[in-house]
Amino acid sequence: MNAERLEITREEHAQRRARLAASLDGADLDLICVFGPTRVAYLTGFHFAPTERPVALALTAGGDLLTLLPALEAEHFAGQCPDLPAPVTYPEYPGGGSGEHPMLVLARHLRRLPGGTRVAADHDGYENRWGYRGPALSDLLGTPVADGLALIDDLRAVKSPAEIALIREACRWGDRAHHLMQEALHEGANELLVSHEASLRATREMLQTLGERYLPKAREGLPANAMFITGANTANPHGLHRNVGVRPGDVLVTGAYGTVGGYESELERTMHVGPPTREFERYFAAMLGAQDTGFTALRPGRTCAQVEADVRGYIGDTLDMTRFVRHHTGHAFGLEGHEHPFLDLDDHTVIEPGMIFSIEPGLYVPGLAGFRHSDTLLVTESGAERLSLYPRALSDLIIAV
Amino acid sequence: MNAERLEITREEHAQRRARLAASLDGADLDLICVFGPTRVAYLTGFHFAPTERPVALALTAGGDLLTLLPALEAEHFAGQCPDLPAPVTYPEYPGGGSGEHPMLVLARHLRRLPGGTRVAADHDGYENRWGYRGPALSDLLGTPVADGLALIDDLRAVKSPAEIALIREACRWGDRAHHLMQEALHEGANELLVSHEASLRATREMLQTLGERYLPKAREGLPANAMFITGANTANPHGLHRNVGVRPGDVLVTGAYGTVGGYESELERTMHVGPPTREFERYFAAMLGAQDTGFTALRPGRTCAQVEADVRGYIGDTLDMTRFVRHHTGHAFGLEGHEHPFLDLDDHTVIEPGMIFSIEPGLYVPGLAGFRHSDTLLVTESGAERLSLYPRALSDLIIAV
Repeated sequence: MNAERLEITREEHAQRRARLAASLDGADLDLICVFGPTRVAYLTGFHFAPTERPVALALTAGGDLLTLLPALEAEHFAGQCPDLPAPVTYPEYPGGGSGEHPMLVLARHLRRLPGGTRVAADHDGYENRWGYRGPALSDLLGTPVADGLALIDDLRAVKSPAEIALIREACRWGDRAHHLMQEALHEGANELLVSHEASLRATREMLQTLGERYLPKAREGLPANAMFITGANTANPHGLHRNVGVRPGDVLVTGAYGTVGGYESELERTMHVGPPTREFERYFAAMLGAQDTGFTALRPGRTCAQVEADVRGYIGDTLDMTRFVRHHTGHAFGLEGHEHPFLDLDDHTVIEPGMIFSIEPGLYVPGLAGFRHSDTLLVTESGAERLSLYPRALSDLIIAV
Repeated sequence: MNAERLEITREEHAQRRARLAASLDGADLDLICVFGPTRVAYLTGFHFAPTERPVALALTAGGDLLTLLPALEAEHFAGQCPDLPAPVTYPEYPGGGSGEHPMLVLARHLRRLPGGTRVAADHDGYENRWGYRGPALSDLLGTPVADGLALIDDLRAVKSPAEIALIREACRWGDRAHHLMQEALHEGANELLVSHEASLRATREMLQTLGERYLPKAREGLPANAMFITGANTANPHGLHRNVGVRPGDVLVTGAYGTVGGYESELERTMHVGPPTREFERYFAAMLGAQDTGFTALRPGRTCAQVEADVRGYIGDTLDMTRFVRHHTGHAFGLEGHEHPFLDLDDHTVIEPGMIFSIEPGLYVPGLAGFRHSDTLLVTESGAERLSLYPRALSDLIIAV
């Protein structure tokens, strides 16, 4: 990582492209087309606001690089990626008077690239973002397009030291946002307002602390963020906000993250408004034990499924609470909030040092509440290190009323 | 629209499904599969936080409805859509120990639906969201899948009275957020902080005013929002944020919106910090004239391309500024910030009453600034009505220093 600026260096982006090009050779492919905006950012450092206007990248096994952009992104690209060849641009989507769909422009230029015609892509054409409509790449090229998504996303799964440093910094600001939100919580607090106020305060601190080392990589949202859902809503793992105030007896399931250099952290806590009941304490302790089991289970050389099996074993054999499980133990993440692989019984990916996972086994007790902590874990040479350092104990997570 | 609650009624969602089912008959199709989360919400009222866990809807020409959800969304769905048949659920993605990918569960249930086997989909399988990996629907079914995206999105393009009422209310809060942001702008103001503070204040007012009539439809973000980009960044139509303060002489290009019942508004303004130069005034007036041309050009019975041709004609013939154009005049929107169709020379969609468009011709002057206002326009029986009512004149858009 560039010590002056909290972002991935041009050199590291070049290394990523070199590794991808080398993997094409190994997979008997000549060319890969990349349409996913996060994958384009991963391979180039070009972060942009994705719209219906296609952006694409093509890389040959020989290392030739082609990028396709709408004209309105050209200067933006040149500013962020001065080391890369000038992009191919098209006037506008759907055509801007050219009479030519952007995918036709892409196909025309792909045919001129050196090398063979065995093509892969992360998606068979531009993704259906917003009002976009367009042809499949395979139809345009008149040839089957192999699924090359895993070639990129498997690279993304193992983080570099620079990526880990950014995620570590992001954790710091997720923790801070959560702390400010907890401080501001009180009876009657509106869940939308209290969380955004805390996020804003944390962001202000973050910008003051990091100064010009911090470089925004997104068009919207705050880089230090905390929120929560409450009440019976917590029994849904992915509940939406309610427009009401916090009440005594409410259970809160929170979520907080930082975003630094495009990389996210993850932190979630189960909280209680006022003194908890014995029943609440019992489920909370059970959840904490399940998360501890996950922390211990996460080690290099094991599979994702084995980690999940350990957690499921604890929940089933020790707790007898399998009926309260609604999702698996966790997921990788980095540039996106969820990434492949998943700590799931059906994911047999082997865990490697440098992978980043959430550990968040949840217990959802109908009519009572959801119980879930989530933390950011880095897989090390011998086990895993917790990067989110927020308190986990119930005594630290009670809101006085 | 339900007068008590700012959301689309169950009856209207049922009408949408009936219209889609009828359109299948007309297109010689038996079944359509829908994977896009916004399209699922459009057809059911089920708003959810999309993840790597597939959600799908299938509708037959006979009106049979199938929904596929991860188990963790089942209660959430039942709460939002009590009138719909119980969904098919799967334990988890990628399998949760079932050994069965969610798309295999979908395929199994699709085969049991009555009717024929001529299948369309908005996307040939679940979209590659986050870490999702999975097979194409056509491969699973062993049959070609027709592109049915337009069948749904063409319905979405013409808004109902209830949708228009929600967008009108959203405009009110976009205007208000912009107003509060303009009030708070001053020399040295940080673009991230001042915009989020204004958004928070506007949201607080909105929640107080609308009370329980307002129902959040998203997991993140504020329902009344304003932001801006500044400096040379404005010469990029989609510039990202900078982490610096506003300086005298800066040009601001703002963006503000409300979100009510899932529907968005659009409002953008070009602003100046301190007294503008004559050069700035000249380009500002030019941009204003181009936007006026767009307002007048937007009428039912014309095509999107004709509207764009009018604006391009004004910019080219009257202004001689075609070299500063970087994008077309506008786009439809509603549940998403950009939707089909587009006011573009290559979009020949006929404009109908009830369509909602942004009108936002931009002039991007290298080395100086970008000039762009955007407003929300409703196509009426005889022309168009501007729903965003924020001042447009330069004298109203200067920040005193």
